[in-house]
Amino acid sequence: MGNFQMRTDLALEARESITEADSELRGVRVEEYYHEEEDIRVTKVMIDTKNAAKAMGKPMGIYVTMEAPAMVEPDEDYHREISARLAEEILELLPGADNEQSVLVVGLGNREVTADALGPQVVDNLFITRHIVKEYGTAAYNCRKMNQISALEPGVMAKTGMETAEIVKGVVEQTSPDVLIVIDALAARSTKRLNRTIQITNTGIQPGSGVGNHRNALTRESLGVPVIAIGIPTVVDAATIVGDALEKLLEEEEGLENVRYREKQLRFAELNNMYMTGKDIDAVIKRVSYTVSEGINIAIGETFLENCPQNTEYDPA
Amino acid sequence: MGNFQMRTDLALEARESITEADSELRGVRVEEYYHEEEDIRVTKVMIDTKNAAKAMGKPMGIYVTMEAPAMVEPDEDYHREISARLAEEILELLPGADNEQSVLVVGLGNREVTADALGPQVVDNLFITRHIVKEYGTAAYNCRKMNQISALEPGVMAKTGMETAEIVKGVVEQTSPDVLIVIDALAARSTKRLNRTIQITNTGIQPGSGVGNHRNALTRESLGVPVIAIGIPTVVDAATIVGDALEKLLEEEEGLENVRYREKQLRFAELNNMYMTGKDIDAVIKRVSYTVSEGINIAIGETFLENCPQNTEYDPA
Amino acid sequence: MGNFQMRTDLALEARESITEADSELRGVRVEEYYHEEEDIRVTKVMIDTKNAAKAMGKPMGIYVTMEAPAMVEPDEDYHREISARLAEEILELLPGADNEQSVLVVGLGNREVTADALGPQVVDNLFITRHIVKEYGTAAYNCRKMNQISALEPGVMAKTGMETAEIVKGVVEQTSPDVLIVIDALAARSTKRLNRTIQITNTGIQPGSGVGNHRNALTRESLGVPVIAIGIPTVVDAATIVGDALEKLLEEEEGLENVRYREKQLRFAELNNMYMTGKDIDAVIKRVSYTVSEGINIAIGETFLENCPQNTEYDPA
Amino acid sequence: MGNFQMRTDLALEARESITEADSELRGVRVEEYYHEEEDIRVTKVMIDTKNAAKAMGKPMGIYVTMEAPAMVEPDEDYHREISARLAEEILELLPGADNEQSVLVVGLGNREVTADALGPQVVDNLFITRHIVKEYGTAAYNCRKMNQISALEPGVMAKTGMETAEIVKGVVEQTSPDVLIVIDALAARSTKRLNRTIQITNTGIQPGSGVGNHRNALTRESLGVPVIAIGIPTVVDAATIVGDALEKLLEEEEGLENVRYREKQLRFAELNNMYMTGKDIDAVIKRVSYTVSEGINIAIGETFLENCPQNTEYDPA
Repeated sequence: MGNFQMRTDLALEARESITEADSELRGVRVEEYYHEEEDIRVTKVMIDTKNAAKAMGKPMGIYVTMEAPAMVEPDEDYHREISARLAEEILELLPGADNEQSVLVVGLGNREVTADALGPQVVDNLFITRHIVKEYGTAAYNCRKMNQISALEPGVMAKTGMETAEIVKGVVEQTSPDVLIVIDALAARSTKRLNRTIQITNTGIQPGSGVGNHRNALTRESLGVPVIAIGIPTVVDAATIVGDALEKLLEEEEGLENVRYREKQLRFAELNNMYMTGKDIDAVIKRVSYTVSEGINIAIGETFLENCPQNTEYDPA
Repeated sequence: MGNFQMRTDLALEARESITEADSELRGVRVEEYYHEEEDIRVTKVMIDTKNAAKAMGKPMGIYVTMEAPAMVEPDEDYHREISARLAEEILELLPGADNEQSVLVVGLGNREVTADALGPQVVDNLFITRHIVKEYGTAAYNCRKMNQISALEPGVMAKTGMETAEIVKGVVEQTSPDVLIVIDALAARSTKRLNRTIQITNTGIQPGSGVGNHRNALTRESLGVPVIAIGIPTVVDAATIVGDALEKLLEEEEGLENVRYREKQLRFAELNNMYMTGKDIDAVIKRVSYTVSEGINIAIGETFLENCPQNTEYDPA
Repeated sequence: MGNFQMRTDLALEARESITEADSELRGVRVEEYYHEEEDIRVTKVMIDTKNAAKAMGKPMGIYVTMEAPAMVEPDEDYHREISARLAEEILELLPGADNEQSVLVVGLGNREVTADALGPQVVDNLFITRHIVKEYGTAAYNCRKMNQISALEPGVMAKTGMETAEIVKGVVEQTSPDVLIVIDALAARSTKRLNRTIQITNTGIQPGSGVGNHRNALTRESLGVPVIAIGIPTVVDAATIVGDALEKLLEEEEGLENVRYREKQLRFAELNNMYMTGKDIDAVIKRVSYTVSEGINIAIGETFLENCPQNTEYDPA
Repeated sequence: MGNFQMRTDLALEARESITEADSELRGVRVEEYYHEEEDIRVTKVMIDTKNAAKAMGKPMGIYVTMEAPAMVEPDEDYHREISARLAEEILELLPGADNEQSVLVVGLGNREVTADALGPQVVDNLFITRHIVKEYGTAAYNCRKMNQISALEPGVMAKTGMETAEIVKGVVEQTSPDVLIVIDALAARSTKRLNRTIQITNTGIQPGSGVGNHRNALTRESLGVPVIAIGIPTVVDAATIVGDALEKLLEEEEGLENVRYREKQLRFAELNNMYMTGKDIDAVIKRVSYTVSEGINIAIGETFLENCPQNTEYDPA
């Protein structure tokens, strides 16, 4: 099926639509594995050709999806076991992870809109080191070798009057990080994926994606440095869910064409610019943002820990 | 039509469903007027009998709905002209408004969830006077006669472990206000009413209403003092909007019964505890909360202004 | 020395002033011990007689002070080892800790003023259970026996128009907790104690204490239930620090009387209603509030853990 | 007098120290006028020579100080009359105000520390237009001619790991504004000036100024565009106030030299990195930030109002 153009930021969901029709799409490789202890299912979708990219509606690159049902549940340590697995996946996509790097983490989204606050809240809990290392050297942390972390919350265009991409580009040119990690709240097609799925990709941020519909790209092409994007679906597009519900219900009904036609009218009138989210979204965002920041803190901050003889551990704020 | 049980907190919408079937329901009177200059349409639904209350699914009392399309738009003075009309409607429902009164304003909802933050944000902008008048008398404001305003943000049960009604009841018993004004974000059935409609009622808050689904009543019966509820619809229930969309589309289709049956299953599985709201909800809530607080400040704070010879105006913080 | 009346909320500091003059004050017992591993120094001041209470300027009762220098430093686990020691001290002061209890935690202070936000931020991170246990029983957590936690953020008088004591009393009467734990940011006399000292006392909150100068008492006498107060000094009173500085400098100078006289004038004019705090107070409050909430979560939430056979640990949100 | 090196960000205060010793400093011109109706005293200090700049400890340029005692008091319209006067002063310092311009407003400071949140809160209430004008032209506002406003909240180094100047420079290079307006909370020497004084200068931001002690300059030299800085003193440096108090008290005492010596030791030990502020700083910042944003909205947003025939007024959000 999949005739309606459903909006999803998840490559996993894009692939599901595809494979129903054409289960052996060339140029798309899929790997799956399961971490039993942590109950995390990892799916890697690798889009290798331009044709495959077109069919999937996603650019070429690697998309890792971690499905971790425990993530929505409260946990004293904010699911550090999930953070640890996330750190592994980040490091695998990070070019040059064997050497010291300066990593700029960009928290996209709007702090004032709960479902869109993932990026800003992740940035709040990072262990920022760039300014200290720049001024005092890695010796300030008793380390011989360590990465530098900086962070930016660019804000949304309605509040800045500027494209996010303009702000990020300017800061990248001034501070010359080796790599960007960009965090964003995503839109999913299915409510079942909300808040329990992490997507990590080396393709950066595409125009029109995310809860806030960022219009310009944040990619290696546009910024000149590698961009890893980490996202969690926190909303379902309102038009999408209505369309999905209709489709499920009407599969066996007649007059489907007529319904589809009218459904399209509906989407652009009433439901545009609306999204659907859960009633406990504040508690959920607070929790999953810790899980993500800790994943980054481990991946970037703790990589060269053996080079810090007197310090057995960093202390993220 | 109207077979699905749509959730709406607006008496206006409840009445619309009703009157399609039975346009002259006994025990329900409706008055309408239009303020041309401010483009505000006011509808008063008066439910006078128990039968009418049953048919409407709302308790007996007066429900005033102000539809003010300008409210969603930016305005330097936060639409003080709407606040002034709101103040008139509040005063009309306020028992004993000719005498000095102590008014407790209760801001329901969850400050951390943007669409549910109306109550807390209204409370933030009130001109609080009770503590000053209690300590220094009305002379502190150069007045011979004035009302007292106090305010409470009780929080939500997930964060307090207590029913809102328990907290409010305790505070009412300790501080003995003459009347309560309770503010809450509401759920509407139609996206067209979102953020541009104010409902004022003398029936208080009913169980299960509001974005946060408060479970216990805040009414004259339960609290022992008159309760005026002011609400603005900021969300549409996700199940409701899917139901509405289905119904519109399927009116002419066959097999409707089957569809309805499946729609019900869907509602309680996937869409429960989800709501739909606009992408600019943060800016909207910020604005409309000012309009409402200013309405209360005018109605309660400025009523006896002629008794304040040296002060031509109060200064809300 | 000590002729100026220094404002301090810490019994430890009150005692220091005293013992300079009279090192064996009757009715005051002091116990000290040191947890070497965690570098926590605990001082228990027990004021046993009315005379001693008068001399100390603090009511009769037990005052435990934990000095934990590590508390101001970043730590991935928010110093869980300090939380664990805090839990021990809370349990020791908690009457009837052997039985299941309903505990209401009250977060005093003003969320909008960083140095006064300790109470509200502690409350944000508690593991609230009362509403679940009330509705579904302890079985909801797979426990046979467990305490209930509820929480209240009453706000400050300038925003509510009500005394904190009125609000708390009303809620206590409606919800009948067995014991109150009240959290407040305190004023210290010495900058050296800021943010690294926790005071736990069974005497509740006294009028005029705390950063926000709460005017009414929250005590067993006023509320009818035992009240444990937990406080951390986050500010130094501006007048106090000027006085201290003066005193230190002038010890050997002549003309001291004249200086003192003028210093008093100064205090009540310019420095009144001002306080002094550190420039990184936001990061500090965020951290220490976690340490305190976790201490409460352990003390109250995990006490009967052996009664929860299938759950080895609670999951605070 | 004035031997201690007192920290103040106010040129007015710097001049006061100077003129006690040397009332006719060459190269410093001073103009004063008084708006009687609004009770605003305006002092313009013009530093014209390098020598004068050295003596004052402030760079060459114009420093306008508006003293408006009413500003600390609540007012329904957030003192629009002060905003209007502020707008006049901004326009006078704004180069090229006769032509359409693109103005970037930068809100310095830390949103999480109340006394340092002036910049971020001013930015929250600006009427942002750049993105609309860029996409739809000035016709979107029914204007033939209008300025563009954009805004940036760069955050503080402890949270970003980057110098504010790096971020601002990058954004300036990408978005090419014609002029910058930079907002910052300042440190005053006297508590009497707190929150009721606005300083407007065309010299930008100097290293080490502001509550957050920004280390790098934001000036025409460093950024390549004119920089107007608007600041309000919200804190007094702790060391400064102790020094001031000492000095006042000791003027007639003997042994002053000894005292001074010890005072210096004190400053760098205990009081470093501390500041003093008022207990109602949250309400004050909320109010004065509105006054400033409205001043900017009038100066930049309403300048070409006569070019907007169908719109008599802009509508700031």
